[in-house]
Amino acid sequence: SRRTMGKAMGLAGLLLGLVVVPAVLVSTSLRHGIPRTEAEPEPSGWELAADAVPEDSLWPLPQRVRTYPRQLQLAPSRFQLVHGAGSSAGPGCGLLQDAFRRYYEYMFGHSWRRTWGRRPPAARAEPELFQLQVVIEAGDPGCDRHPQLTSNEAYHLTVTEPVAILKAYEVWGALRGLETFSQLVHEDDYGSFLVNESEINDFPRFAHRGVLLDTSRHYLPLKSILTNLDAMAFNKFNVFHWHIVDDQSFPYQSIYFPELSDKGAYSSNLIYTPTDVRLVIEYARLRGIRVVPEFDTPGHTQSWGKGQKDLLTPCYSGEQPSGSFGPVNPVRNTTYDFMTKFFKEISSVFPDEFIHLGGDEVDFSCWKSNPEVTEFMKRQGFGTDYAKLESYYIQNIVDIVSSYNKGQMVWQEVFDHKAQLKPETVVQVWMANNYAHEMSSVTGAGFTTILSAPWYLDYISYGQDWKKYYSVEPLNFPGSEKQKKLVIGGEACLWGEFVDATNLTPRLWPRASAVGERLWSSSSVTDLQDAYKRLTNHRCRML
Amino acid sequence: SRRTMGKAMGLAGLLLGLVVVPAVLVSTSLRHGIPRTEAEPEPSGWELAADAVPEDSLWPLPQRVRTYPRQLQLAPSRFQLVHGAGSSAGPGCGLLQDAFRRYYEYMFGHSWRRTWGRRPPAARAEPELFQLQVVIEAGDPGCDRHPQLTSNEAYHLTVTEPVAILKAYEVWGALRGLETFSQLVHEDDYGSFLVNESEINDFPRFAHRGVLLDTSRHYLPLKSILTNLDAMAFNKFNVFHWHIVDDQSFPYQSIYFPELSDKGAYSSNLIYTPTDVRLVIEYARLRGIRVVPEFDTPGHTQSWGKGQKDLLTPCYSGEQPSGSFGPVNPVRNTTYDFMTKFFKEISSVFPDEFIHLGGDEVDFSCWKSNPEVTEFMKRQGFGTDYAKLESYYIQNIVDIVSSYNKGQMVWQEVFDHKAQLKPETVVQVWMANNYAHEMSSVTGAGFTTILSAPWYLDYISYGQDWKKYYSVEPLNFPGSEKQKKLVIGGEACLWGEFVDATNLTPRLWPRASAVGERLWSSSSVTDLQDAYKRLTNHRCRML
Repeated sequence: SRRTMGKAMGLAGLLLGLVVVPAVLVSTSLRHGIPRTEAEPEPSGWELAADAVPEDSLWPLPQRVRTYPRQLQLAPSRFQLVHGAGSSAGPGCGLLQDAFRRYYEYMFGHSWRRTWGRRPPAARAEPELFQLQVVIEAGDPGCDRHPQLTSNEAYHLTVTEPVAILKAYEVWGALRGLETFSQLVHEDDYGSFLVNESEINDFPRFAHRGVLLDTSRHYLPLKSILTNLDAMAFNKFNVFHWHIVDDQSFPYQSIYFPELSDKGAYSSNLIYTPTDVRLVIEYARLRGIRVVPEFDTPGHTQSWGKGQKDLLTPCYSGEQPSGSFGPVNPVRNTTYDFMTKFFKEISSVFPDEFIHLGGDEVDFSCWKSNPEVTEFMKRQGFGTDYAKLESYYIQNIVDIVSSYNKGQMVWQEVFDHKAQLKPETVVQVWMANNYAHEMSSVTGAGFTTILSAPWYLDYISYGQDWKKYYSVEPLNFPGSEKQKKLVIGGEACLWGEFVDATNLTPRLWPRASAVGERLWSSSSVTDLQDAYKRLTNHRCRML
Repeated sequence: SRRTMGKAMGLAGLLLGLVVVPAVLVSTSLRHGIPRTEAEPEPSGWELAADAVPEDSLWPLPQRVRTYPRQLQLAPSRFQLVHGAGSSAGPGCGLLQDAFRRYYEYMFGHSWRRTWGRRPPAARAEPELFQLQVVIEAGDPGCDRHPQLTSNEAYHLTVTEPVAILKAYEVWGALRGLETFSQLVHEDDYGSFLVNESEINDFPRFAHRGVLLDTSRHYLPLKSILTNLDAMAFNKFNVFHWHIVDDQSFPYQSIYFPELSDKGAYSSNLIYTPTDVRLVIEYARLRGIRVVPEFDTPGHTQSWGKGQKDLLTPCYSGEQPSGSFGPVNPVRNTTYDFMTKFFKEISSVFPDEFIHLGGDEVDFSCWKSNPEVTEFMKRQGFGTDYAKLESYYIQNIVDIVSSYNKGQMVWQEVFDHKAQLKPETVVQVWMANNYAHEMSSVTGAGFTTILSAPWYLDYISYGQDWKKYYSVEPLNFPGSEKQKKLVIGGEACLWGEFVDATNLTPRLWPRASAVGERLWSSSSVTDLQDAYKRLTNHRCRML
């Protein structure tokens, strides 16, 4: 009832507004390479995937998919995920062993048809698939390493009787291929597990495919974070951008400075202990996901001030301190002494090669009010350009972090305000207003960049907004081929003002899946109707 | 980070745009009748309620609240909810016995501090509250009845040492008072349960306070519906408007016409059996909630057509049937034979005095195309005014349903299209465009009405939209006192296009709480800052 508006926003209406150019669909032209003889019914709404064609269940869509009509049957009691001949990985590879267990469970463990209607396998005519053999080709498979920006996630999957072969250079590619294989396996109405013979050649379009969660505005229990890492793996995301602290609270329990969370967390139990942090990092690693921590300074630091005296700038009202505090105080040596020690800890706790230094939305009014800062500005010859003071601060932090051999990520203002950045710095573009221009500028200056501006998923709206996220083309900005190569990916951001454990999962997924496919699949994969069909099945599988 | 927009939409910004006139707050002027001596800290974000003043935990705000600084202690091992002297209800009153158990559990059962930090009761100086005595004053307390539009929900609650007294005319008022009492009881930091001495006189502003759920666009498991009934009781809602079937699916399993759900439900297990329906009705009854089923015709009936041949109008393309179907066929006797039998069943299955007949968004194009309908229009002298045909149909249905002694609810179009309605018909106003004008028209014609137009909660948007729902004043339309009296309430509607069990609860609550207070509390309760504080605590308690 009363759905006129809703209906108008339905699938068909939006699709008509889109121009689909089949000739461009080079990499997916093989999807229906072998014509199937039966007519395909159009799947409706949230229908189960049982009767769908194999490609209808893949998300994100692999670079090259060829499926054949011949079906193979899998017997859960016999089917095995194993290390293949010639693989550099073996039973000692904990990461793969864990993945084998996990994907076996995904494929066979949660079937709602388990306990009824199962036909004996003998009743089926299909030949059987007995194994998935995983072959890692690199000398060092990477079992005990952490994934990194330069990790190789490519894989090649062949499903034919009697064994399927998954080849990857490193374990990271094997993880992606296991996810794809599990998406190919489906149950029929009688509870038989089937997979079509197929061949898939796959690799990510972008190396950095991230999801940002904000654990400061609302604390997120460990379980929420881990559940989200699972969902990320289902969508081939590979970076968890952990916006761990902010103005509102400081839940990170520091080893050197425990008072930061003692006084800055919402409460003594709403914190992440060193053990919690290690658990998140390991859980992510096992899924091929990097954990990039963000410790945003000099702004967004009100909660830091509670546990670290004299770190923030005292604001003045006329001649007197007003009692409130502004950004980190950039003019005192004690600030840099603290940051040197603090980032030494962070560099050691978080194994990723990158630390996100924040640097966004610095409010200059408090600095302007403070006589010590004014005096410093004069001495440095900054005039009244507080962006220079901000850059002075950031450059000091960059030098500290660089001395620990960590790369840096920063929000776009750090670039905009002309801080001297290391050449390998990753600039994150977030301002929605003309972000294409910003992408041009950042890459024009030779910096690598990731795009977030169109993917602020906390800004909810009515209807299927995943289509808006899906239709973004990250390279659609003026620039040379060389500039485009500097775009290493993007991130879906879910800021925490209105998000906590009660709504995180249904708010983020499957909306973030749209970003996941945009960052993994070929740029030519843009058909919304096809995406809708696949995303529907993918959502059902994730549930 | 990157939260400039978010911040601008925060509490302070919106509040500044609102004119609060303290002089109008007559009924809440007693809230702080006894001045407290300590300074009150402003509660932040989602802080726990432990240190808050008693009134800060009440939602919806009662009509009159007086609290005193003296605190009484409750010992879970001794405290009792009991029938008071002179009550017409006793241990044979299953409804109250069930409520006693339930509210005991709410107050003492789920404490997160249960297992640690508890001081022995002896360590406290406070006097003890031993009982809440519930006194029902009517000769027939109503224990085995169903709540109805005219039920009395007023109650009077006095909390003083050594026993608290809850007086109500009927059990329905006692249920509301139990909810209020449970909201007054709180735990201190050491796990002691405390209540301030207080006196509350309370009654609803509007008699019909509803929540609409849509189980057709997405099926909702029984558990989701029951959870929602709990949340409704926490917010003193008293009508579950069950939009049970629609175009998309027919999950209601009919006794007379089982094919309707056999063929019209999404699948054979996504249905509501007679047992399920009885369970929902009883679960609601025990919480003082009416279940008003909606069987929307003649439009929104595509799913009916699957299991009931010849019920829908065959659409024509030129001279030939096109193969698609329109609204219920209003020109055939078989239609009314079916509806007579169908609504006989519905009238018996659902005990409420009202059935919602729908009647919205009827698309005339199919009727126009059908030669049989055209011929009928001619015979009846309707000319080309299909609204007359719609009214003809609706009046037949109204007569059928009236013959079973059921009152009718309808969507506003039925009134707009000038159907002859029974005087006691409730017209539901849903069109957002100039709903004040519609309220004027409906009440001007002498019909009772409920308001939904500003409370379509499925239309989500970014930020604290509860303030928008909260700030609606249902009587703010041009009309006489007599017209205003015809507004018997309103409903928060959550249509199901983008809602299922995965997101129902966090999407609906606490946003619907804003509507709950608007419909229960005095019209003078409009202070957003005060509401924010109370709603924050209420949300925490609901979780």
